[in-house]
This record gives sequence, C-alpha cells and structure tokens, in this order.
Amino acid sequence: MPLPPPASPGIPLDEVDTPALVLDLDALDGNLLRMADAVKESGVRLRPHAKCHKCAEIARRQVGAGAVGVCSQKVSEAEALVRGGVADVLVTNEIVGRQKTERLARLAREAKVAVLADDAGNVADLDAAALAEGVRLDVLVEIDVGAHRCGIEPGVPAAELACSIAACRGLRFAGLHAYHGSAQHVRGPAERRAAIAAAAEKAEFTKTLIEKAGIPCETITGAGTGTFMLEREEGWPRFEQSLFVLATVMSAPSPAHAVLDAGLKASSVDSGLPQVHERPGVEYFKASDEHGVLKIAAGAKAPKLGEKLLLVPGHCDPTVNLYDWFVCVRKGKVEALWPVTARGALW
Amino acid sequence: MPLPPPASPGIPLDEVDTPALVLDLDALDGNLLRMADAVKESGVRLRPHAKCHKCAEIARRQVGAGAVGVCSQKVSEAEALVRGGVADVLVTNEIVGRQKTERLARLAREAKVAVLADDAGNVADLDAAALAEGVRLDVLVEIDVGAHRCGIEPGVPAAELACSIAACRGLRFAGLHAYHGSAQHVRGPAERRAAIAAAAEKAEFTKTLIEKAGIPCETITGAGTGTFMLEREEGWPRFEQSLFVLATVMSAPSPAHAVLDAGLKASSVDSGLPQVHERPGVEYFKASDEHGVLKIAAGAKAPKLGEKLLLVPGHCDPTVNLYDWFVCVRKGKVEALWPVTARGALW
Repeated sequence: MPLPPPASPGIPLDEVDTPALVLDLDALDGNLLRMADAVKESGVRLRPHAKCHKCAEIARRQVGAGAVGVCSQKVSEAEALVRGGVADVLVTNEIVGRQKTERLARLAREAKVAVLADDAGNVADLDAAALAEGVRLDVLVEIDVGAHRCGIEPGVPAAELACSIAACRGLRFAGLHAYHGSAQHVRGPAERRAAIAAAAEKAEFTKTLIEKAGIPCETITGAGTGTFMLEREEGWPRFEQSLFVLATVMSAPSPAHAVLDAGLKASSVDSGLPQVHERPGVEYFKASDEHGVLKIAAGAKAPKLGEKLLLVPGHCDPTVNLYDWFVCVRKGKVEALWPVTARGALW
Repeated sequence: MPLPPPASPGIPLDEVDTPALVLDLDALDGNLLRMADAVKESGVRLRPHAKCHKCAEIARRQVGAGAVGVCSQKVSEAEALVRGGVADVLVTNEIVGRQKTERLARLAREAKVAVLADDAGNVADLDAAALAEGVRLDVLVEIDVGAHRCGIEPGVPAAELACSIAACRGLRFAGLHAYHGSAQHVRGPAERRAAIAAAAEKAEFTKTLIEKAGIPCETITGAGTGTFMLEREEGWPRFEQSLFVLATVMSAPSPAHAVLDAGLKASSVDSGLPQVHERPGVEYFKASDEHGVLKIAAGAKAPKLGEKLLLVPGHCDPTVNLYDWFVCVRKGKVEALWPVTARGALW
C-alpha cells in the first residue's frame, strides 16, 4: 500500500509533516526557463536526466520547456516515466539480461526508446529482443571518455561496435554517448575544461571514423549540470535551490545541540551531510538512521523543540529516491503533491 | 502504484531480476534461534528493532521466537507494523508535533504502544493527545548515557521528568531508555565494555532515584546487536549473514574492472561500500547512483557480463529502506516475497 502524502494542498509549509521532500515551485519554474534559455541557439539540445527527480510531472514540464525528451537509468524507471506520459526516453545505460531487454523492447511499442551499448554480445541480445517484439530500438554506443566506468574504448573499437549495430535488423545506430560524469566534480575550472575538451575530442574522432564507414552518427550525448556550460562554451546561468528536506527539531537537550527527525533515511549523505538552509551558526553535524544532530554555535539563534527547518540535501538523486511525494510549495504554501513516479524503480 | 516484485516463488536465485534485496531464510531462521537462545535465562527480554527490517512478517517471527514485541523509530513505521499484525511496539524515539502525537495516541487504541520522552513540554503534549483519544500511553524517559544525541541528563533531571509523567492522567511511566548506540562502534572490547558499564551505572542510579520517589521503574531498555552480549555478560553467538543485495554485471570493459547495476540507490554507503560475497579478489570499489564499479585483482576469477553477484551491504537499515520487497531464498531458490511493510515510513 503506498504511503499517504505528508501534506495536503493549501496548508502552510510549517504544517507539513516531517521529514518531507519539499520542492519550491517558483525556483523550479525559474530553473526550467534558465536552462532552456542557456542552450537556446547553441546547437545543443536538452535531454535532462530524470534519474534525479524520478517524477513524470517534472519530466513533462522539462519537455514543455523545450527538452527533446528525458534520460532514465533503468528500464523500470523508463517504464514508470512512459506510463506517466513521457513520450521519449533515452536509457543512458547498458541493459543486460533477458528480462530487462525484453521489457525494454516492449516499452518501445509505447514510446520512443533508446539505449546504450558497449558490448557486441549485448548488441545481439538487444537485436533479438527488438525482433521478437517487432520494434526497432535506437542504440547509442557508450564510449569511455575518462570516467572509467562503463563504455567501450573510443576510436576503432567503438566504430566497430557502431557498424555491428547498424547491421542489425532490429536496431538503429543512433549516435555516441560520451558522458564524463566525474568531470563535474573536478574543482579547478581549467582542469574541468581540459577533461571536457579531451572527452569531446575522443567523441569527435570516433564520430569521424563511423561516418567514414558510411554510417550517419546523428547524435552525441553527454554533459551534466556541472559541466554543460563548458560543453556549450558560454557563461553560467544562476540556478536557484529548489529541492529541500523539511525536518522537525525533535529533541533540544542542550544549548549547543539539538536533534532533527531527518537522518540517513531522509537525506543521502554519500556526497556530504545536508546543510541547514538560512540558519547561520546551525550546522547539521552528524546523521544516524533517523536522527540528524545539529551543532549550535555560541550566539546563534538556537532552533526550538518542534521548530521546522529546511535542509539542502548533499546529493539530490538518492535523496529523492527515498520519498514517495514531492510537497510542492509556492510562497510558503503547499500548492500540489507530485508522486515520485519512479521511486525505487531500480531494475 | 507499488512496484511489482523482482521475482516469483519457485524460481532459482539466478533468475531474480536485479538489483534485489535477498534474504537467506535458513540464515534468518538460525539467527532468530541463536538470539532467543542467547538471552534465555539472562533476565533480559528481547525487543528487536524493526527499523532495521521494516517488515511485519519478520517482526511476527521475532515475536514468535520469544521477543516481547518490537521497537520502531517513527509513528508511521509503528502504524505500518501494527497494521501488519504486530501487537506491541515501543517507539524508541521522541515524538514531537501535533500530527504525530495524535496519530501515536490513535495507534494505542489498536496495539500496546510506548514512546520515549526527554522534555517536560513534550510530555504535556503526549498527555493531551492520550486524553483526547481516551487511551493511556506508556512513556519511558530517555536518558543520555553517552551518545549525546537525544535524552535528558541521568540522575535528578531524569527522575523529575519521570515524576511528571507519573502525574499525568493520560500517561504511565514505564521505565528508562538508556541506549548507547555509538558504543557498538567502539572497536576495542575493553573500551566498549567500559562505555556500556558507564551507561548501565547511570541508568541504575537514575532508577534508584525514581524508586525512592515511590514510582516503580519496571523496565530499562537499551542495547544493540553490537553490544548486547556485554550488557548480558556472556559469550557471543555466531550470527550468519542473511541479508544481501543481488546485482548483475552490466558492463565488463576491461580485465581489471567491471560494473554492477547496483549503486547508491541499491545499497547505502554511509557505513562503507558493499562487499562482494565469496568472490576473492573482486572488490566493490566505487559507487555512483546506479553503478557499482568492481576492481578485479590479477589472477582473480573475473565476473562475466550478465553474471549475478551477491553483495553484503555496508549498513542494513538504510539499504532495506530502499526496497519494496525481500526476495526470500532457501537453498538457492525463491521461497517467498515479503513486502518491506514500512519502506519509506519516515514520519
């Protein structure tokens, strides 16, 4: 049985039960426009990754603001998005195993679906699944441009794989996937720029080889929010924080510390602890399963028992995946509740 | 809409779709017996914490094996367990806020419910909620025995709070909660023993004060799996690993590395990365949202594309909370699917 939402439309933010995943709609609307504006006239098309929000409602708004479709990372995630009204999904991942390739091919009957590959055996499996289902699957070759995760070597090995895809009756070679996720976490702008330039060069070289073989290479996908401005070579739009976790002070045993009701099951800590929003001197100091310990600096305004605080999570994607609902707020009031459509869609 | 389970009873483990949360039932059955046996004749009663498994089926088995009831950490978690057939739940946490105290009191109409408190104002709120609902809530005073999280100072402050609970018409003072969770992570056995001895002493001293005031202090709760043997002063039973994450090799780009389809959304990494079960030389090296990178030592048996591996998660509680289903396996075959009843029950 799905859990009930922790709020209802019309109530003030302060009456939302906690912990809750809060989305500021003014910030979201602004960010959607800023992103659309940032890629306008750049020759780059936008395909945001829905693995971050897992929400069909947000995906539809992204498409409404000009995105060509969205990405997903899992077949079950793509299924949930398509059933939520998204018409074009690129699964930016290798899909391995009979159950998964069959479901992927079945989904291609309902929507435009594309997938990555980095292995010839997997290409054969995808082809068989597509033929059995009577569909044609778009397949992009993932090349390893420096992340050393998935992906075949750029150059000849990638071009050979592209040729083998083009030769499959159930598949269509749709381009290259050259994502360098870890480059987003390179701190120095010069080093970050160099990593992206190297990735772009490898992709371009591979594209040239494929086209020499007479196969069109229509798309090169890649880029993340942390690097896309380097990949499009311009200035940086000012995004606003739109995602928060609302938490309640559930214990205030001393002037120097208090405890929130939001711990490891309310905010993912793999990329750092959440930060307390607009409360100088109040630091989220330690997370356990269901508790977040706050350290209160001398002289800072101490949070009171029962008070609700907004947290900025350290990592959006796995934090969103913990919740069933976005509590959508505008100017301090709940406007809507959006289901996290693909919450837990792991496979 | 809840997600479908990744398996059906009767299929071999190797056909379970991945990532999946796998529970070895032989190991579980053995562990239940070992734990019951370990506390037998010790004067200590067992009340396992259901925040770990969040599963009504497991909770009922724990009670069947002799536990007096279970603990939960949140009201919504307690609600899910009670609705799943658990008759006695201690919420080992402070419950703050009108919505939560009302729901807690309502739940006490359906089951035996107890809760912690560390604040006089919160005690008044709990009393009001209980009176409004026409129930009597059991309340234990949480004392801070060294964890410095929630809890009032042991000794006089705790005894005063106990007296104020005993004076409430809607509440019953039910004892002390003296949990020293972090002591489980103290590595040296002598230091661990000292931390637990100090906690026990503070609890005993507070109990004496309360009883001198003429109030019975029937229960002292505490202890975790990592310290209970010190708290009961005997040898250590040999538990078997029963919880796993099953993952598929989705990319094998080089002899030295491969990639699993299980990352941060499949296994919590706050207490360390998952370990690959019984595959020497194969190390789970890096987690991103949906990927786990394996490092393969020279000479080790390299996992093949499509192969399924068992992982031992670094931290059970937040890992279980990512899944909707336990895939219960016995001797390599799926025997049952148990819902993670309180998955995402955060508030």
